[in-house]
This record gives sequence, C-alpha cells and structure tokens, in this order.
Amino acid sequence: MLINCAAYQDGRRIADPPLDQISDYLERPGCFVWVALRDATAQELDLMRREFDLHDLAVEDASHGHQRPKIEEYGDSLFVVMQLLELVGGELNVGEVAIFAGPNYALSVRNRSAQHFLGVRERCEREPHLLRQGSAFVMYALMDAVVDRYFPIIDLLETELESIEERIFTKGRARSNIERLYALKGQVMVLRHAVAPMLEYVGKLYGGRTPPICSNMQEYFRDVGDHLARINASVDAIRDTIGTAITANLSMATIEESEITKRLAAWAGIFAVATAFAGIWGMNFDYMPELHQRWGYPVAIGIIVVACVAVWWGFKRARWL
Amino acid sequence: MLINCAAYQDGRRIADPPLDQISDYLERPGCFVWVALRDATAQELDLMRREFDLHDLAVEDASHGHQRPKIEEYGDSLFVVMQLLELVGGELNVGEVAIFAGPNYALSVRNRSAQHFLGVRERCEREPHLLRQGSAFVMYALMDAVVDRYFPIIDLLETELESIEERIFTKGRARSNIERLYALKGQVMVLRHAVAPMLEYVGKLYGGRTPPICSNMQEYFRDVGDHLARINASVDAIRDTIGTAITANLSMATIEESEITKRLAAWAGIFAVATAFAGIWGMNFDYMPELHQRWGYPVAIGIIVVACVAVWWGFKRARWL
Amino acid sequence: MLINCAAYQDGRRIADPPLDQISDYLERPGCFVWVALRDATAQELDLMRREFDLHDLAVEDASHGHQRPKIEEYGDSLFVVMQLLELVGGELNVGEVAIFAGPNYALSVRNRSAQHFLGVRERCEREPHLLRQGSAFVMYALMDAVVDRYFPIIDLLETELESIEERIFTKGRARSNIERLYALKGQVMVLRHAVAPMLEYVGKLYGGRTPPICSNMQEYFRDVGDHLARINASVDAIRDTIGTAITANLSMATIEESEITKRLAAWAGIFAVATAFAGIWGMNFDYMPELHQRWGYPVAIGIIVVACVAVWWGFKRARWL
Amino acid sequence: MLINCAAYQDGRRIADPPLDQISDYLERPGCFVWVALRDATAQELDLMRREFDLHDLAVEDASHGHQRPKIEEYGDSLFVVMQLLELVGGELNVGEVAIFAGPNYALSVRNRSAQHFLGVRERCEREPHLLRQGSAFVMYALMDAVVDRYFPIIDLLETELESIEERIFTKGRARSNIERLYALKGQVMVLRHAVAPMLEYVGKLYGGRTPPICSNMQEYFRDVGDHLARINASVDAIRDTIGTAITANLSMATIEESEITKRLAAWAGIFAVATAFAGIWGMNFDYMPELHQRWGYPVAIGIIVVACVAVWWGFKRARWL
Amino acid sequence: MLINCAAYQDGRRIADPPLDQISDYLERPGCFVWVALRDATAQELDLMRREFDLHDLAVEDASHGHQRPKIEEYGDSLFVVMQLLELVGGELNVGEVAIFAGPNYALSVRNRSAQHFLGVRERCEREPHLLRQGSAFVMYALMDAVVDRYFPIIDLLETELESIEERIFTKGRARSNIERLYALKGQVMVLRHAVAPMLEYVGKLYGGRTPPICSNMQEYFRDVGDHLARINASVDAIRDTIGTAITANLSMATIEESEITKRLAAWAGIFAVATAFAGIWGMNFDYMPELHQRWGYPVAIGIIVVACVAVWWGFKRARWL
Repeated sequence: MLINCAAYQDGRRIADPPLDQISDYLERPGCFVWVALRDATAQELDLMRREFDLHDLAVEDASHGHQRPKIEEYGDSLFVVMQLLELVGGELNVGEVAIFAGPNYALSVRNRSAQHFLGVRERCEREPHLLRQGSAFVMYALMDAVVDRYFPIIDLLETELESIEERIFTKGRARSNIERLYALKGQVMVLRHAVAPMLEYVGKLYGGRTPPICSNMQEYFRDVGDHLARINASVDAIRDTIGTAITANLSMATIEESEITKRLAAWAGIFAVATAFAGIWGMNFDYMPELHQRWGYPVAIGIIVVACVAVWWGFKRARWL
Repeated sequence: MLINCAAYQDGRRIADPPLDQISDYLERPGCFVWVALRDATAQELDLMRREFDLHDLAVEDASHGHQRPKIEEYGDSLFVVMQLLELVGGELNVGEVAIFAGPNYALSVRNRSAQHFLGVRERCEREPHLLRQGSAFVMYALMDAVVDRYFPIIDLLETELESIEERIFTKGRARSNIERLYALKGQVMVLRHAVAPMLEYVGKLYGGRTPPICSNMQEYFRDVGDHLARINASVDAIRDTIGTAITANLSMATIEESEITKRLAAWAGIFAVATAFAGIWGMNFDYMPELHQRWGYPVAIGIIVVACVAVWWGFKRARWL
Repeated sequence: MLINCAAYQDGRRIADPPLDQISDYLERPGCFVWVALRDATAQELDLMRREFDLHDLAVEDASHGHQRPKIEEYGDSLFVVMQLLELVGGELNVGEVAIFAGPNYALSVRNRSAQHFLGVRERCEREPHLLRQGSAFVMYALMDAVVDRYFPIIDLLETELESIEERIFTKGRARSNIERLYALKGQVMVLRHAVAPMLEYVGKLYGGRTPPICSNMQEYFRDVGDHLARINASVDAIRDTIGTAITANLSMATIEESEITKRLAAWAGIFAVATAFAGIWGMNFDYMPELHQRWGYPVAIGIIVVACVAVWWGFKRARWL
Repeated sequence: MLINCAAYQDGRRIADPPLDQISDYLERPGCFVWVALRDATAQELDLMRREFDLHDLAVEDASHGHQRPKIEEYGDSLFVVMQLLELVGGELNVGEVAIFAGPNYALSVRNRSAQHFLGVRERCEREPHLLRQGSAFVMYALMDAVVDRYFPIIDLLETELESIEERIFTKGRARSNIERLYALKGQVMVLRHAVAPMLEYVGKLYGGRTPPICSNMQEYFRDVGDHLARINASVDAIRDTIGTAITANLSMATIEESEITKRLAAWAGIFAVATAFAGIWGMNFDYMPELHQRWGYPVAIGIIVVACVAVWWGFKRARWL
Repeated sequence: MLINCAAYQDGRRIADPPLDQISDYLERPGCFVWVALRDATAQELDLMRREFDLHDLAVEDASHGHQRPKIEEYGDSLFVVMQLLELVGGELNVGEVAIFAGPNYALSVRNRSAQHFLGVRERCEREPHLLRQGSAFVMYALMDAVVDRYFPIIDLLETELESIEERIFTKGRARSNIERLYALKGQVMVLRHAVAPMLEYVGKLYGGRTPPICSNMQEYFRDVGDHLARINASVDAIRDTIGTAITANLSMATIEESEITKRLAAWAGIFAVATAFAGIWGMNFDYMPELHQRWGYPVAIGIIVVACVAVWWGFKRARWL
C-alpha cells in the first residue's frame, strides 16, 4: 500500500508524483524521490524494482520479511532492514522496515507493524538544510526514528526487572519471580536480536571506508551507532542481572520449601516427645508407684507440657523453628 | 553413482556427455561441465580427479566423508563441503555434499543422504542469464539449496522448544521437560556444527579479497552468508534458552520433590497430634477423673478431631499444605 | 551555571573574560579559553555552541545527559563524556561530565554531580610547562581526575566484598550474604558501565592514528588508559568472585536448611525408639511376665534410656547429629 | 638414542650417514638429511645443535620437554613441538615430539612416548615426488601423523560420553555418572591442550605471509589445520555436553535422594495413621461402648487396614509414592 | 636502597661507579650502566630520573607501586612492571619489580618483595657474548627470572588442586573441599593478574613492529612470551577445573545432607512399624483372643521383630538405607 511519494530538490518538496511518473524526477540533477510503502504487494515491489533498478536479492528480502536486521551495499545503493518492536498486551510484536537508499531515491517498506513514519517526513521537511544532503539523510532519519523507539521498550523492561528485584528475597515470591524473569528474558532476547546485528552493520557507515552516499553523514550514523551501543549495553546488563536473579530465585524457592519441611519436622518432634512420655505411663507394669498417686496424672501432664515447651524453646533459640 | 552429467554453454545445456568424454567439452571456450555424483566409488572419484585435475587432498576429503563443513581454495578452483541434515524419526541424520568448482567445471558428490539436487539443476536451467555466470553460479545454487533446507529444521527445533516452554512451570513435568530439552540440545548442536564453520568460510567469498571465480557473484554469496547468519542467530538463541530452561527445570524438579515431602511431613504432623492426645488418655494413672465420665470418650474424640483440624487449618493458611 | 572561564597563553592565565567576549581570545594565536559549566541551561549551551562552533549532535548529548561514556571526534575537536560516581548513603549516584576540546578551547559541562574540578584547574595552573600544551592537556587533566575518583569506589567495593568473604562459610549467614552480594553486584555493574566503554575509547588516543590535538600527549592518555585498565581488571575480578560467592552461598543456605532437617529427623528418631519400647510394654497380653515383677518398671525405663542414648551416640558418631 | 639418520636427494634416500658425517651431505645442493632421535641425551642434542646450527632456546625446549605445543621460526628454520597422546590403562599419557626443520635438514626428537614414526618415513620414501619438496614435507608428514593419532582418542572419548549419556536419566546412576563425567572432562582437557594452541600456530603456515620453507606446501599444512579444527570442534562439543551432563546429573542425584525421602515420609505417614487409630482405642475411658462388643476388635483392625490402604492409594494416585 | 650499580662494555663489567658518577659512563659509546635498587626512596628515584632522563609518569608508577603488570614505551626506552609472587604461610605475597631499559642503561627497582636478582647479574656476567647485546638483554634476563619464579607457584597450586580432586567424591569432605577450592581460586586469580596482562604486552616485543632496543632479541622475548602462555594455559585449566569442582562439591554437600535425612527417615519408618503393631495390641477391646493366650506375647514380639527386619531389609535392598 502506498503511503506517500514525493520528489525533493534542494531539501524542499517539489512534487508528489504518482508512482509511474517517478522516473521523470529521477533524471533531474540534484533531485531525489522518497517513497513510503506499507505491507507492499508483489506488484508494488516489482514496480519499485523497475523504477529504482533495485537488486533482485534485496527485493526478495523486503517481500519475504522475517529478516535479520542488516545493512547491505548493492553497487552505489544501500539496503537496510530493521525490526520495529511494539509492546502489545505484554508481548513484543516484531515488525520490519526495509529501506532502499540510492543516490537519487529513498524507499521505505514497512511490514507487519502499526508504527508509521509520518513524523519523520515532517521533521525532515522542516529542516531543508539537512534534507539537502539527499537520500542518505532520509535513511539516517528513518533509522534514528526506529532506534529511538527502542528506548521506551528498554525502559519498560528495566522497570519490570526492578519491580521483580525489589521482591527478589521476599518469601513466597520466588516461584512467581522466576516465571516473570523467564518471560522477561524472552523479551530481552527479542530486543537483543533487533539491536546487536544492527550495531555491527552501522559501524561500517562511519570511520574507515564508508559507502559513498554516506560519506558526508558520518557523524550522524555514528550517533545512531552510539544509541544502539547504549541500548545494547542495557540489554547486556539486563540479561546478566536476569541470569543472577533466576539462579538466586531458584535457590530461594528450594530453600523456602526445605525451610517449611524443617519447621514441620520440628513440630513433629515436639509431639513425638509428648507421645513418648504418654507411652511410658501407658505401660502396663504392675508396680509403677506414680500411677497410684492422686497427684500422678496432673504431674504427668505437667511434665509432658514442660518437656514440650522446653523442646519448643530450644528449637526456637537455635532458630530451627 | 553418476546422477547426471551435462555440458553448458552460454547458460544453456548443450550436451549430456558420458563421463569419459568430458574433456572434449572442458577445452571449448565459454563452456563448463556440471557433474553430479552420489555415494561415489573410489573409481568414479579417481576418474573425476583425472578429468578435472582435482587436488589429492580434496578428493581424499570427499571420499572419506565425515568432514567439518569448509570451503578451501586449491589454485583457481574451490572445494566446498557442507552437511546435509534430515530429520528421520526424531533423529538428525547427517549427510554430506562435496562441491568442486573450477573455471570450467562443477562437480557435486553427495554422501549418506537421501536429499537430491535435481530441483537445483532445473531451476538453474530455467534461468540461463544467471547460469551463464558459470560454475560459480552452480556452486552458489547448490549452497543456497543446502542452506535453505536448514530452515525447516530450525523451525522444527523452535516448535519443539516452544512446546516445552509452554509447560516449563507445569507441575509434574519437570523431569520429562529436562529429558526433552537435553535431547533438543543435542540436535541443536548438530545444526550448529553444520552452520557455524560455514558462516566463517562463506564470509571469505564476498568483501575484501575473494577467489577469482566468485568475483562477480559476491551479492549472491553474501545472501548465503546472511541466511547462515540468521540460522546461526536462531541456534544461539535456542541454545541460550535451552540452558536457562534446563536450569529452571532441574530446580523445578527438586522443588517439586521437596514440596511433596513438605506436605507429607505436614500430614504426619497432624496424625502425630492425634497420637499424642490418644497416648495421654491411654496412660494408666488411677486417678484420671475424665476417664470415668460418660461424656469422656466422645469429648476426647472431639478434642482430638478439633486439634487435628486446627493444625490442618493452620498449615493450610501458612501454605504449608 | 558558569563556574569559571579563563583565557590562557603560554601556560599562564591571562584573563577571565565574560562569556560573550570569549571570541576575542579565540582569535589570538597560542591562546586558548577554558570554560567550566555546571548543570548548564539550554541558553548557556547554545551560547557555547556558537562561540566554539560545536557540533549539534555533541551539544544535544551534553544537554540530554544519561549518555554512555564515549570519546567522539568532530572535525579537529574532541567530545568526551564520562560518568562521575559518588557513594551517597550506600547508593552509587551517577553524574556526568561532558568535555569539548578544540584547538583553542576546552569546555567542561558537569551534570547531576556534586564533584567539582576546581582542584584540577589549580593544579594545571601550577604547572605552566604542561598547560602550555593547550586544551589537550586540560582534557587529560579532567579525565585523569575523573578516573582517579574511581579508585576509592573500587576500594570500598573490594572492602565490602572481603568483609562478606570472611563469613562466606559461617553458618547462619548465607542468606544475608547473598543479599549483600547481590547489592554489591549491582554497584559493580554501575562502575563497569562507567569504565569499560571508556577503556576502549581512550585506547584510540594513543598508539596508531590519533586525533591531531592529542598527538604530543600520547604518554599521558596511555596513563589514563592504564588506570582504566587497572580498574577494569579489579571490576572483572570482583564480578568473578561475586559470581562464585553467590553460588557458594546459595548452596550453603540450602545445605544449612537440610542440615537442620537432618538433625530434627535424628531427634525424632530417638523419641520414636522410646515410643516403640513403651508401646510394647503397653500391650495388653495377659501373660507378659516382666510386667508383674517389682523390677519391671525401673528396668524398662532403664532399657528405654539406654536404647535412646545408644541411638543418640550412634548418630553423634556418624555425625548425623 | 638415534633411531635413524638418512640423506635424501631428489626424493630418494642416497645414504645413511653416521651422525658425525652429516655435514658432508648438508653441503650438497638439493640434498637434505632426516634424523630421528628418541629420548635424546644432552650429548646427542648438542651434536645436533652444532651440525644443524640450531638455536639455543629451541634446543633447550627440546631437552627440557613438557612444553606447550608450538611452532616457532628461528631465521629460515622452523621448530615444532607437538604432544603425543596415548591411552594407557584409562589414563592419557602425554609424550612429546620436537621437530626441527631447516632448508636442508629435518630432525625429530621424541620424548616419553612409545609411539614411533617409522611408518611415516616408509610412506614418505614410497612417494618420492612429494619427498622431493624437502624437509617441509617431512615436517608435514610427521605433523600429519601426530594429528591423525588424535582421532582414535577423540573417538574413545566420544564413545565414553555416549555410554554415559545413555544412562544419564537412569535412576541410581547419577553419582557414578558424575564421577565418570568428571574423569572424562580431565581427559578432554588434556586433548584440548594438545590441539588448541597447535590450531593457532598451524594457521600461520598457510594463507598470508608464511615461512619460506613452507611456501609451496600450503595446501598440506591447511589440511593439517583442518584436521586440528575438526578435533577442536569435537573437543568443544564434548566439553559443552559434559558441562550440561554434569549439571543434569548433580540435580538428578539430589532429586533421587529427595524422592526416596519423600517415599519414606509417605510410608511413615501410613503407619502414623495406624498408630493414631490404635492409640484411640487404647485410651482408658470407662465408657467406650465399641470396646465391649464382640465385633469391636475385627472391625477396628478392618478400619485401620482400610484407612492405611486408603492413604496409600491416595499417595499412589498423587504420585507421592 | 642501592643494591648495586655497574658499568659494562662489550659484555664485561668495567667499573662500579657511585650513583652520581653514572653520567660519565653513559656518554662512552658501547657502554651501558646497570643499576639495581630495592624499595627505592623518592630521593633515589629522583636522582635516577635525572641521570637517565626517565619519564615523569614512569617514575611515578615505580614509586607508587601496586601497578598492573605492563610494558610501556617512552621514546627509545622501555618501562616494565612485573609482579613478584611469593608463597608466605599459605598466602600469596605480591611484590613488584619495575625495570627501566634505555639504549645505555638498565635500572631495576624492586618493591615489597624478598626476592633478589643477584643470580641474574651473575649469570649475565658469565655470558659476555649475550650481555654484549646491551640493556635489552638485561631486561630479558630479569623478565625471564621473574617468569621462571611463577612456575613453582603454579606447581604448588596444581598439587593442591590434585589433592582436593582426589577426595572430591569422598563422603563427608564436600564442605572442607569447597572452602579449600574457594581459597585456591583466590590464589589462582592473583597469579592470573600477574600473568595475563604481561602476556599481551610481551607479544609486542617480537613479531611485527618492535621497540628498537629489542629488535635483535626477538627470539628471547618470544621465549618469555611462550613461558607466560604456558603458565596462562595452566591457570585457565586450573580455574576451569576449580569451577567444575566447586559446583560438584556444592551438590555433593547437599546430596550428603539429604542422604542422611533419607536414612534417618528410613530408621524412623522402621520404628513406626513397631509402634503401630504395639499400639494395636495395646487397644482395650474386651474380645481380643490372642491377648489371652500364653503364646500371645512372644508371638507378638516375634511379629514385630520380623516386620521391622522385613522393612529394614526392603529398604536395604532398595538402597534406601
């Protein structure tokens, strides 16, 4: 589905040509065309391929989707795939945006995601001195927007982690903590798969040999790389903490169970003392003088109670109960 | 066993020569011969070695089998070994295909695997503009086919993992989960050994200095490398998840056992209370007034029941039962 | 908020110009201006941007804060972000200092931290032969001061770790040890995030290709790098030890619980012996000759006591009790 | 101890000179001398050092033994140390072979190992077209022989691992499994220390800049490197599996113990039920009507049996027993 | 404190000048001065700094001590810091030696260590053909001596580890094993911090671009590097083994505790059987015919004993006891 298509010259929008008249603008010197598609059909992609002379393999990747994030050079144009992440009902929904950037065109194809980039186009058009740089700036602006949308997600994950950590040593919470940590780990891995490969690819857009169309935009791509590095460091920190927290909680859960067993054993021991005493006075020997005393019974009860309390107090003091 | 042997010129099949007339076609300019063997005998391999002037070490590797995946350069020709994976009855069967690609020939030798590559040849012949590139394209097409067949396997492994994860915290499942996770880990390692070394080798076919026969096919080999990287990332994610899941389930199994012990201890405690009371009224003191009352027995039973219920309720409330 | 602003020539302070007259001094050959701001407002940063011709992205980073430590080159100037760590009430407070260093200016912007750098300026002014090197020396002096302030923090963390380790195998401490280790790990990670990225960036200021303004200061930046490497090695050692210590303490906690259960079970067993004997002599058979002997009762009590003591002694010897 | 010493020209053995006449052959163009020593004395090594002009440090390493595997260049000659592994009575015996290879000589010194290399010499002499390459081929042949002897060892270790894995979840085996896994890990580490450093050093004999005497043997050394990589991959896989298996078995052992405790607790519970009922009818109340009925005793026994069976069945159904 | 100071020419000692006449010898061509200090005072270091024109930062490092091992280039001179390790009463004492080596001087400053290097000087003076190489050889000889003194330490640590491993599965030892392993790990980490950084720095003294004063000593520094690599590999192996051993012993300790609990539960079960039977015959039913038989009591005792033995035997056979 076409979202919009505009031609720019000297950083200003000069026309909104229909898709099949794009080629008129591609030939004008200093002019570039920026097309945005969403969930593009095979026909649309094929039209774009012919208009912009895109490489078969890149078009195939854009139409198949479910790619690993990457930046590939095809001749003098670049092909970028990034993942769009949205938290929908506690689950991370993974969409995708493919960006084709050549000397005189920029094409973005968004798949399986509700996130749009209208704001990016508006911001670009408000800054003609930057947009004048051409399609590389459009590519930067889109990538920057995608990466910026990772920050709220990492914030959410960190908040969730902190809320779990606050009760990491709370009794009776170990089991639910583990389940939440396990779920959190899954989400962190999704974010990591969106960020980690990109980090490596973006590193090739600045410093050393860079693709020609990025050559005067290096500071900007380094900024994107820096943002990715920041997210990646957070992801690694979260993963590390989750690992320790899961281990700690698993042990906590085990300890809690055995602690209860221990206390039950202590109570059983106290009653065993009572039973043993009662058993002794329940023996049927003929000559058990205390049995025939008036004070026998209350004293026996007293001894039993005292013995139980003593044992209870001993366990208490030894922190066994 | 010879599967087929054909000579191509300008991307079109021009003849199906018998093996001993291959040399006639090798000498024609712009012509290359594509031979496919299966479980080749020593004689066949020796014939091929002489026809195509293959290196001794490469032929030895192809005949011995059980190689690590690799790509090696011998002069101006390439020698590729890849593993063919098939899920047969829950087990991953590991076969092998060795590909020799020189300027004017492509030879594939498939060992211990039922997977054939007839479809690859057909597809190549339908695209003469690509096949015109020569043996490097054949090599690419075969490698691409092998790698594409890894995807359904990784899907199966992911499905199995998800099915285990769904019941990772289900009581009573811990033990069977561990066994399944352990088996899954073995399969993932097999896939990893097929993919990880290849990833490194394919990286040498594009970017920087590449073997001459691949020089105008770099985008294609990068595409293979990208697929391998995607599989490798999935493999790493699965391994990581399996590790955490095994740890979690091992602890779950321990916790389950101790939880039952705890509950048994609680029940034993309840009966110990009954026994202690009964023991007391079973003592043989002469003067135990309650023993001689009509209401003594029912009240005693009542007290015992009340005490047991109270203890039971206490345990219940403390979540010990 | 402006802290101070001074112009230097030949290593000596020549003037304290107001912010809007800085440009007069920037034009003088061999003269540089050193400005220190604290929690700078957008206006101040914008003024600085215009005076020193700073890059938009760097200014944005300095005003947003919460950056990852980094060193970036913008043309012939450098932009450094470092974290300022302070232990406030057991918590590590993370502030930030951003340093802009160009051929004829040095600007430091400190955010969210009470640590000031007045001592650095004084020390620099006392060593004019070094300050003569220009803004790179100022940058070095500030970085060196920041890094030096990490050492007392790592000392505190090591002291805390040692105090935990001393009682790592002390009974009854396992649980509180784990909580302290877990908290310590969090603080170590904060320090690590301040140090590890810096280590990499500082490495680019000496050896190989270095930014022009640092070229005759390489030994000094290598010294900063060496300090960072030392802190980083300590951080890694602490992390490694914490990992082992947590694992050990988790197991210790489990072992302690089960050890108590074991001892309770032993005591329960001793009383079970008494109960069993008492039960036997409590049976109602008509012909139990020992019941009718005068010595019956004391001997029975004796047997019970001897049996219990024997069992107790057996448990003791087997170290079960 | 001298094993043998022969001079070769054009790939054919031309003489078996005594050690002190070696120098005559060293001067002949196109001729090289191949000496094999075993557990060489200091005198023999010193003689060799003078004849072949070996470097002091290399001779010292060869005489001291217990080196890490390595390949070192001394001027235009190479010094190789490899470990010889033999399984003797379940233990891995570690011997050593040091190879000195110069333009016109090859010297092998074998220490503390019963493995001989007579077969290598025979094989080389049967292939004069390869032996014509000179001492580098001898060096290759020896290295290849050493590496080939690692394969049966890795096969043995894999077989042992598989035999343990087959019973990894078998009850009652956990403890002995752990001990076997632990012993296996020790052996794997020995193999790893023989292989891993070599892998790195062999990589410097092919590709990029190589020592001059290896320059036309690169395919062969790459083949050795490939074998080492294969062994190394197996070693890593075994290590990884051992790690998981040890963890799993440790937990299994814990689980087994607690499972038995659980079942014992269940049985104790069943008897506690019987005891509680018996205790109730053992109370001495005057008015317990059922005590005076003829059917009282059998009914009581029946109730006790029914209660115990009910409890037993309940436990069984809940899989607690 | 000055240990000694000597001037050398052509590998032979020509004079023992007092410290303030060193400069006379520094100017002579082909002559170098070798000074050894111990726990040097600030005055001594300052004198050395002026005599040899040492860099401020290096002198500062040498006087502060507690450095990470390192090798730094200052112009045409080298600055080396290595750690001296001594086992004093079971603790690893960490001292330091700083070596300054310039074209015509070598200065060693030893701090906080009783290890002296007199033997190194003697050995050097016995080999004038090597000492002729100048200060780089002195530096090599000192470094080699320091590294050689690490070997007995690693041997001690390995011996300790083996002694622990021998009883790793011995019952009742788990707890003390863990404590010893934990202490051993601490010592291994100290050795590792002495070796690992050095390994990296020494690698820069041979191969590729090396500091000029080392250029004809590369084989010797490679030898030092090789020794360090050997120690480092041992350290890594010990660490890996300690990790596994700690894990194993922690589980062993848990298993031992639960095993005892299990056996206690079994014994409690046996007595519970006796108690249950005794309780039944202790019931007060009027019509319990066996109570009135002469054989009743002995038969009851017999039944109880048989039941207990049967249970005991059953537990024994099931390996529960």
